[in-house]
Amino acid sequence: MRADGRRPDQLRPTRITLDVQKFADASALIDCGDTRVLCAVSVEEGVPPFLAGRGSGWLTAEYRMLPRATTTRNARETRPRGRTQEIQRLIGRALRAVVDLQLLGERTLLVDCDVLQADGGTRVASITGACVAVHHAVHRLRAKGLLQTDPLGGTVAAVSAGLVGDAALLDLCYEEDRSAEVDLNVAMTDRGAFVEVQGTAEGAPFTRGQLDALLDLTAGGIRELLQIQRAVLP
Amino acid sequence: MRADGRRPDQLRPTRITLDVQKFADASALIDCGDTRVLCAVSVEEGVPPFLAGRGSGWLTAEYRMLPRATTTRNARETRPRGRTQEIQRLIGRALRAVVDLQLLGERTLLVDCDVLQADGGTRVASITGACVAVHHAVHRLRAKGLLQTDPLGGTVAAVSAGLVGDAALLDLCYEEDRSAEVDLNVAMTDRGAFVEVQGTAEGAPFTRGQLDALLDLTAGGIRELLQIQRAVLP
Amino acid sequence: MRADGRRPDQLRPTRITLDVQKFADASALIDCGDTRVLCAVSVEEGVPPFLAGRGSGWLTAEYRMLPRATTTRNARETRPRGRTQEIQRLIGRALRAVVDLQLLGERTLLVDCDVLQADGGTRVASITGACVAVHHAVHRLRAKGLLQTDPLGGTVAAVSAGLVGDAALLDLCYEEDRSAEVDLNVAMTDRGAFVEVQGTAEGAPFTRGQLDALLDLTAGGIRELLQIQRAVLP
Amino acid sequence: MRADGRRPDQLRPTRITLDVQKFADASALIDCGDTRVLCAVSVEEGVPPFLAGRGSGWLTAEYRMLPRATTTRNARETRPRGRTQEIQRLIGRALRAVVDLQLLGERTLLVDCDVLQADGGTRVASITGACVAVHHAVHRLRAKGLLQTDPLGGTVAAVSAGLVGDAALLDLCYEEDRSAEVDLNVAMTDRGAFVEVQGTAEGAPFTRGQLDALLDLTAGGIRELLQIQRAVLP
Amino acid sequence: MRADGRRPDQLRPTRITLDVQKFADASALIDCGDTRVLCAVSVEEGVPPFLAGRGSGWLTAEYRMLPRATTTRNARETRPRGRTQEIQRLIGRALRAVVDLQLLGERTLLVDCDVLQADGGTRVASITGACVAVHHAVHRLRAKGLLQTDPLGGTVAAVSAGLVGDAALLDLCYEEDRSAEVDLNVAMTDRGAFVEVQGTAEGAPFTRGQLDALLDLTAGGIRELLQIQRAVLP
Amino acid sequence: MRADGRRPDQLRPTRITLDVQKFADASALIDCGDTRVLCAVSVEEGVPPFLAGRGSGWLTAEYRMLPRATTTRNARETRPRGRTQEIQRLIGRALRAVVDLQLLGERTLLVDCDVLQADGGTRVASITGACVAVHHAVHRLRAKGLLQTDPLGGTVAAVSAGLVGDAALLDLCYEEDRSAEVDLNVAMTDRGAFVEVQGTAEGAPFTRGQLDALLDLTAGGIRELLQIQRAVLP
Repeated sequence: MRADGRRPDQLRPTRITLDVQKFADASALIDCGDTRVLCAVSVEEGVPPFLAGRGSGWLTAEYRMLPRATTTRNARETRPRGRTQEIQRLIGRALRAVVDLQLLGERTLLVDCDVLQADGGTRVASITGACVAVHHAVHRLRAKGLLQTDPLGGTVAAVSAGLVGDAALLDLCYEEDRSAEVDLNVAMTDRGAFVEVQGTAEGAPFTRGQLDALLDLTAGGIRELLQIQRAVLP
Repeated sequence: MRADGRRPDQLRPTRITLDVQKFADASALIDCGDTRVLCAVSVEEGVPPFLAGRGSGWLTAEYRMLPRATTTRNARETRPRGRTQEIQRLIGRALRAVVDLQLLGERTLLVDCDVLQADGGTRVASITGACVAVHHAVHRLRAKGLLQTDPLGGTVAAVSAGLVGDAALLDLCYEEDRSAEVDLNVAMTDRGAFVEVQGTAEGAPFTRGQLDALLDLTAGGIRELLQIQRAVLP
Repeated sequence: MRADGRRPDQLRPTRITLDVQKFADASALIDCGDTRVLCAVSVEEGVPPFLAGRGSGWLTAEYRMLPRATTTRNARETRPRGRTQEIQRLIGRALRAVVDLQLLGERTLLVDCDVLQADGGTRVASITGACVAVHHAVHRLRAKGLLQTDPLGGTVAAVSAGLVGDAALLDLCYEEDRSAEVDLNVAMTDRGAFVEVQGTAEGAPFTRGQLDALLDLTAGGIRELLQIQRAVLP
Repeated sequence: MRADGRRPDQLRPTRITLDVQKFADASALIDCGDTRVLCAVSVEEGVPPFLAGRGSGWLTAEYRMLPRATTTRNARETRPRGRTQEIQRLIGRALRAVVDLQLLGERTLLVDCDVLQADGGTRVASITGACVAVHHAVHRLRAKGLLQTDPLGGTVAAVSAGLVGDAALLDLCYEEDRSAEVDLNVAMTDRGAFVEVQGTAEGAPFTRGQLDALLDLTAGGIRELLQIQRAVLP
Repeated sequence: MRADGRRPDQLRPTRITLDVQKFADASALIDCGDTRVLCAVSVEEGVPPFLAGRGSGWLTAEYRMLPRATTTRNARETRPRGRTQEIQRLIGRALRAVVDLQLLGERTLLVDCDVLQADGGTRVASITGACVAVHHAVHRLRAKGLLQTDPLGGTVAAVSAGLVGDAALLDLCYEEDRSAEVDLNVAMTDRGAFVEVQGTAEGAPFTRGQLDALLDLTAGGIRELLQIQRAVLP
Repeated sequence: MRADGRRPDQLRPTRITLDVQKFADASALIDCGDTRVLCAVSVEEGVPPFLAGRGSGWLTAEYRMLPRATTTRNARETRPRGRTQEIQRLIGRALRAVVDLQLLGERTLLVDCDVLQADGGTRVASITGACVAVHHAVHRLRAKGLLQTDPLGGTVAAVSAGLVGDAALLDLCYEEDRSAEVDLNVAMTDRGAFVEVQGTAEGAPFTRGQLDALLDLTAGGIRELLQIQRAVLP
């Protein structure tokens, strides 16, 4: 029995709200329990220098926490810290897995994930929420006739799982995450294939059997998240 | 008659919502028309080095916009830009005007004003909203028995006014602000005294008579804002 | 009676010396009591990216203190601090109020205000001194036939005033500034119109009547400064 | 058949040379094919502020490439880039998995991994090589009588695998890595337990079956690397 | 015959003016032809961390040019450039050669050399001018009874020489410096011993005979500079 | 008699090894006693902005130490320190003395000198080693038919000497360097002309006679180094 009464394989209550930033090209606010992330998409013509002239588009993500998203205040990062960079690179890779950059044309989707409140799982919530905002932004490009072919190849959602003591638990909140021996983050497409698998021993190393159990848990959680996404897709 | 149908001396619809960040010491979300600012207060023991050992407290503010608060995306600031620094210094000074730092003791109130959506007047909305959050944070310190004497000396609210063509208008939205000849920001206490008066000719210089008219407008607007604050004070 | 024997409405002895930097396009050294600022103008072809291709010119200012302008040494600023940025933005705005950027053509006037000695009022002295240097720089452009029409629309000068105890005093020196309850900086054109009005309560908030008294003082002081400028204009 | 004639499950020729930096506390040079990393350990008394006073030690890693480790020159990083930070965080976590920081006492092991030549797999080679250098550094601390109890809990080694076309290949060189659809990096202890599992779809997402095949390959490779380490352990 | 009519072994007119910055502990303005440098000394209690607790003092120098010291404007340096750092390190070393840091006690002399106008030879003028300011600052420490024993071991002055075409010339102005094949900067004490000798081939390499001729020239120039210093020493 | 048994005028054992970095355009590893520097050359088309469009090429150098090149660890430099910038500027100037940049055409030679182990004399070893790598890089450009005329005008080598107590010693190791009163670094071409002469009094100032003795020592040392270079030139 978990602190908040959930079963080991149970997600926190999750809700995605559309268009919370009036001036963005598309935006989605995702709530997973007490974790709340605002995901905004900006469409800009052109691509970064390393892609220029290849006819391909680009998608990149930024991730930050508001200073008081957490129980103690975090100073704003003048340069993104290692953890921040790791997370925003992960979000970008996961989202690019469902966007055909060639079909997008020479434009860039900039995804801003700003954590308003943090109770664990902010990186995976960012992926799940941002995927919805990206779909709406692309849908609007198509509605304006700016894209002939749909560059979207399905959706992606992500969730965490971990070993707390001997128990394999889905969708860790901050308290559970702090005491987890192993932390696994998985991103998966709506076709059931992996985009990212990141497992880390925070305490004791883990066996192949434990890894398998955690992978099973996340697969189940992601199926539910994909359904929640579906309800708010364009 | 203004774009949104307001009278020249009419505020935009303004609402202050308490405790929107679960883990902050106090927080307030202020909506002024389409401008939305999240104001969070963090109480930290100790003071910056320049005050150490004097028995006095400190209050300082930070101000940022989310990248997609505006119609085009603004890059995150690795170092706060001139405009940002000017604004956060203004917010800090205005709030310190109603806090007796000596009575606060050797602790620091850190005020974070994060603009989620920007439609003009973000600096004055930050002051009006943050004042409420500061009151709640101090109230909680007192409720915990950490402060014997109330360091709060009333409230402060702020508003803008400007000359658009020949018309003196209260509480400019972004479209009005862009075409204003003169821009005035005023912060005033609940006793009707000035804390800040900042008038700038963006186009033609202005006369003493025009300055007087704008000062009158802001005095009226601030009286209304002080009432809106009062409804959500502890 | 003030520390240096001045009347409340009396300026410090003020002198403007031309062409103190042999290699600058124009320069002026301004002495206001013990405050000494070196103002140099550089004319560069072209404008910053945000103005490119509009046919308009630009004027921008930088402001710094030498480390030992003051009684204790100030470290050089690797990035300009908030106060520095605020001041150089103010100087730039005030000077742009008397330059028609459209008539200037696609060139930039860079104004460097370096404080050699600081005894209060460095920002307003910078405006008053730099205005003279800008006039000379533009005059030389016209003498070389590079400008058909005069882009200068008069002059601008600036001064401070403040409430020290109950007394409203003009042109505060550092000792007076330190103990002032209210600090007002005003910039005004030679037609008597405001360009900037910045009043701040350093101690107790101030009434409308006190603001009016301070505005009157600065108007008188600026009239004298405009005459001192006139004597050294081209 | 691979470009260099290796079987799919075959490591590149791997050699670890001890004490290549005369003045380091311990060092190891690892060659994996044409990848060459210099791993140096520095023992410093004290720990970072976040650990101070807990009696625990710390181990942290830095990772850089020499500018001409690669076929085109890479500019030196004034601030470590996202990729660099991700890698050095990974190296640190993997090594901490085999060091009991409590037994280490209040001292820090600083591990510098400098890539002299890069042909793929630099992050995993860094882990494998650095583990040997850490063992020697700790052994010397014990020989000097500075540590009563051995803080080392075995060894850790790491290797990559990937899907190139349909083939699952062990220990990718740069050419293979560039065209891989999936990239998996695994770190494992000498007891056969996972410390890190990082799988990323660079191209198409991957199935559970493909993940299992890659995990099997890395387990085999790491067993060989652990033997190569053993030959040069103290 | 040189552009300004000087003989090959003739210094430019050189003048040192004392106490040009009212609030500094000591200051000297040095004019060498059209080169003008303001040298200010600040005395601070304490020493940098690398010297703490050894009972020794420290002397360090900073060097900058005002943006419009030269014929085209130089951007302010957010971080000192290589050339700037080289120069300020040189100034510091040369001045430390005549100060017994042990006798100075645990205090720091901070020397600021700000070039108001630059016409070649700014680094050597800085040394010659700053030496005078340092003597006055130390003299004042002694007058206040803060130093029992004189830490000053004489004076130091510096000058440049160069090969322009075939001619060996003393004290190059900017025009001569630009076309010099070889540039030599020498700092020497009042006992005729070298503190620094820096000779660089800007064009063709130079022979031992040419080096000897340039060294002779600088020795003569420095003797004259030492006399100019003597006239303004305390 | 020196610590390592050398005569006062004797170099440390010196060896230059070619092509130690497989992917560089040319590289050389130089060992001078226990000092070891890896010098790599990168040929890039184009030149820095300040040279663009003049038909001239450029050569520039970077210099760094690995953190554990020395007996205590040095933090990596986020921005190159003063000493580092001074050294890399020196290396670049010395190498440019033997390259005709006009004949090189609009391309840049980037020279990276990375100190793997430091026992004194790293800057001079860098010059001697890098000169060989530059020759090989240019030789390969000519072999590919990319250069019609040879831009190389001979070779350059460098060495240090110093006064330790009363003794003038050639090629100081770190222990000798630490206690030297005077430190002289000289770079000279294979025609026996000076490129750089940098003499600094670390302790007592030095006489013309002492300078002459040190210059003689370095001339002898450089003749030997030029022979060692010759053996590995293309």
